Amino acid sequence: MAHPVSPLASPFPAIPEIAGVTPYVVRAGYKDWGRCDLTYVTFEEGTAVAGVFTRNLCCSTEVELGRQNLAQGRARALVVNAGNSNAFTGYRGREAVEQIMDQVAAHLDCPREQVFVSSTGVIGVPLPKDKAREGVANALTAAPCSWEDAANTIATTDTFAKGATATAMIGDVRITIGAIIKGSGMVAPDMATMLGYLFTDAAVEPAFLQQCLSEANARTFSCITVDSDTSTSDTVLAFATGRAGNAPLASFDSPGADAFAAAIHDVCRQLAHLVVRDGEGAQKFIAVAVSGAVSDESARKVGLAIANSPLVKTAIAGEDANWGRVVMAVGKAGEPADRDRLSIGFGGTWAAREGLPLATYDEAPVAAHLKGRDITIEVDLGLGEGRATVWTCDLTHGYISINADYRS
Amino acid sequence: MAHPVSPLASPFPAIPEIAGVTPYVVRAGYKDWGRCDLTYVTFEEGTAVAGVFTRNLCCSTEVELGRQNLAQGRARALVVNAGNSNAFTGYRGREAVEQIMDQVAAHLDCPREQVFVSSTGVIGVPLPKDKAREGVANALTAAPCSWEDAANTIATTDTFAKGATATAMIGDVRITIGAIIKGSGMVAPDMATMLGYLFTDAAVEPAFLQQCLSEANARTFSCITVDSDTSTSDTVLAFATGRAGNAPLASFDSPGADAFAAAIHDVCRQLAHLVVRDGEGAQKFIAVAVSGAVSDESARKVGLAIANSPLVKTAIAGEDANWGRVVMAVGKAGEPADRDRLSIGFGGTWAAREGLPLATYDEAPVAAHLKGRDITIEVDLGLGEGRATVWTCDLTHGYISINADYRS
Repeated sequence: MAHPVSPLASPFPAIPEIAGVTPYVVRAGYKDWGRCDLTYVTFEEGTAVAGVFTRNLCCSTEVELGRQNLAQGRARALVVNAGNSNAFTGYRGREAVEQIMDQVAAHLDCPREQVFVSSTGVIGVPLPKDKAREGVANALTAAPCSWEDAANTIATTDTFAKGATATAMIGDVRITIGAIIKGSGMVAPDMATMLGYLFTDAAVEPAFLQQCLSEANARTFSCITVDSDTSTSDTVLAFATGRAGNAPLASFDSPGADAFAAAIHDVCRQLAHLVVRDGEGAQKFIAVAVSGAVSDESARKVGLAIANSPLVKTAIAGEDANWGRVVMAVGKAGEPADRDRLSIGFGGTWAAREGLPLATYDEAPVAAHLKGRDITIEVDLGLGEGRATVWTCDLTHGYISINADYRS
Repeated sequence: MAHPVSPLASPFPAIPEIAGVTPYVVRAGYKDWGRCDLTYVTFEEGTAVAGVFTRNLCCSTEVELGRQNLAQGRARALVVNAGNSNAFTGYRGREAVEQIMDQVAAHLDCPREQVFVSSTGVIGVPLPKDKAREGVANALTAAPCSWEDAANTIATTDTFAKGATATAMIGDVRITIGAIIKGSGMVAPDMATMLGYLFTDAAVEPAFLQQCLSEANARTFSCITVDSDTSTSDTVLAFATGRAGNAPLASFDSPGADAFAAAIHDVCRQLAHLVVRDGEGAQKFIAVAVSGAVSDESARKVGLAIANSPLVKTAIAGEDANWGRVVMAVGKAGEPADRDRLSIGFGGTWAAREGLPLATYDEAPVAAHLKGRDITIEVDLGLGEGRATVWTCDLTHGYISINADYRS
């Protein structure tokens, strides 16, 4: 954590214990640093698991094996290595991951497919097997740690520890979700990159847990961007131990399923926002709210075109209500748009309506809004009922300094 | 031209007179500046015209009318306004363009569809009709100017005047092409944006001129990017007067057609490179050469994913041979790629071959290469015969300063 703490940082929340989940951290020494860099989390037997992964075609071995392991739906352990992403390392990288899976599976006496491994850090250097073996051995006998310790240990270039929590009632049983995430740039592949983990004591069938996570992902993690780049390692996993004792959730027909899905969505949204708030060089948090699109998915794509536009992001950095750049970004998205129906606003004040600059446009409230930390850009395409919100941060000298001066 | 001249600038070439083409410049006063800002070019009767335009759906009236006018294939005049792009200005903007077309058509006694108009500058402010009328009236009686004057007059945020020239033999007739372009960022939509014009004395049928221009465009203007943003006004027009007296070119079966097409391609490549060399904040000119793709178009898309990656561009700015970021960009392109067949090099030296860092990698020549102004990134996907080269510039503090501090 060499860079100053983001001005958009949030304090780490009070995450309670999650029954059936125990976190540990140790120092494997993947880099020459004094901090812990190996996180180990155990789950009691029968824990359901679900996951979403990067779509990057050059993904890491960890992502490939994680996808495979999901098929059997159960998890007993998670290992997260920080300081080395093990991406683009061929068979040597794969051997290191399989060694970790075997070592933990032997200790827990479980199938190795129930051991999930993530790695984050420099690309192109195989994870050192000897350090991994010793680190895991130490983790197996370590004392449990706090969630904040775990959040700090999975982090790399993050400037603050990130966590979220929520509860929901399933019948008369209160279930709890705790979650941690790392990421500081969607995505900086050297420190590759966004890794998020949700832990809950709810009883949930793996297929329904996957459905809840996938639907939440589509409207949270898939709606954030820092720099339009896509990591080779992005991973979000959800683990459900069932220790709360609720009647297991199998589908949206199960009583309490809606509340559980809403809580998962809430936690994913919190985590996604935290990543943007730690975006490299970020000085402002930007919500792009698109309405009037032909579909929700079309609205999301228009929102991402705006949120990924360097010209829009630099305009916000400069506190400039430059709606012309927003027009440009709408037009380049490739989605249905009609210049003469388009309306654009900032912080609730329209600057242009139906294709024309507003004659009554009052710049004062917009200028005041743009001086703040939390910025809203409103776009109404005037075509249909589709809507989506996308989140990003501004593009500043800080981003250039971090990424041009950083040496892998 | 408020910013310092790009370190990648080229001197303006010696463009000869093009028979049948006469340029003029005047000051219409679209902005409060002392410079000329209206360029007027006349063509003798029978001049063929072809064009390519932005794909931005929120394009300007000038682009809409230019596309329509192309259908009849002939041009008598070109008017370029600088300082106001007239984009996103509704019916009022359209009236201003139609007024210019009518005024010039009446003077030349030609159909108004043969008058082509472009505008570049601030978005969202209708082109003032009175200033346009007086400017055009002055242009109709002005004395001819040089090509460098014309190049300076179509420019906005450009830091140097841009031109190109080439000749070709058609039978025993030498034909000449002269061309000017403005653009400094693909694309800065406030100063929206890339406008390019080719003028030749060759005799060419409009349909074949269009074929040559479209094919050249696919491998030149469509292969450059500064910041991934797409202008609302991008326009490239080619005008052929026929005064050289060659046997008219109607297809690639016409004698000399190949030489002509090659000269058009050469000029388009020169112009495209000049725009990148004036990219906002550019300190280095980057060629991304992709081979081994499943098709040329797939190679181009992979090249653009690399050239548009902020993380790759900042790495080059930092003179960092960060091939991990190139891997990431290849993987996010969405095109066929196999991590374990991928090879990446800089300036002719491989850093990674077939999915693994090269054991014999010698960083010294790569480090020396990256300290230069002209950088090459080589990517071999190892899948097929498809290849393409894409050009971009690095992403520096200069880009942020220009775009965050600039106020529309």
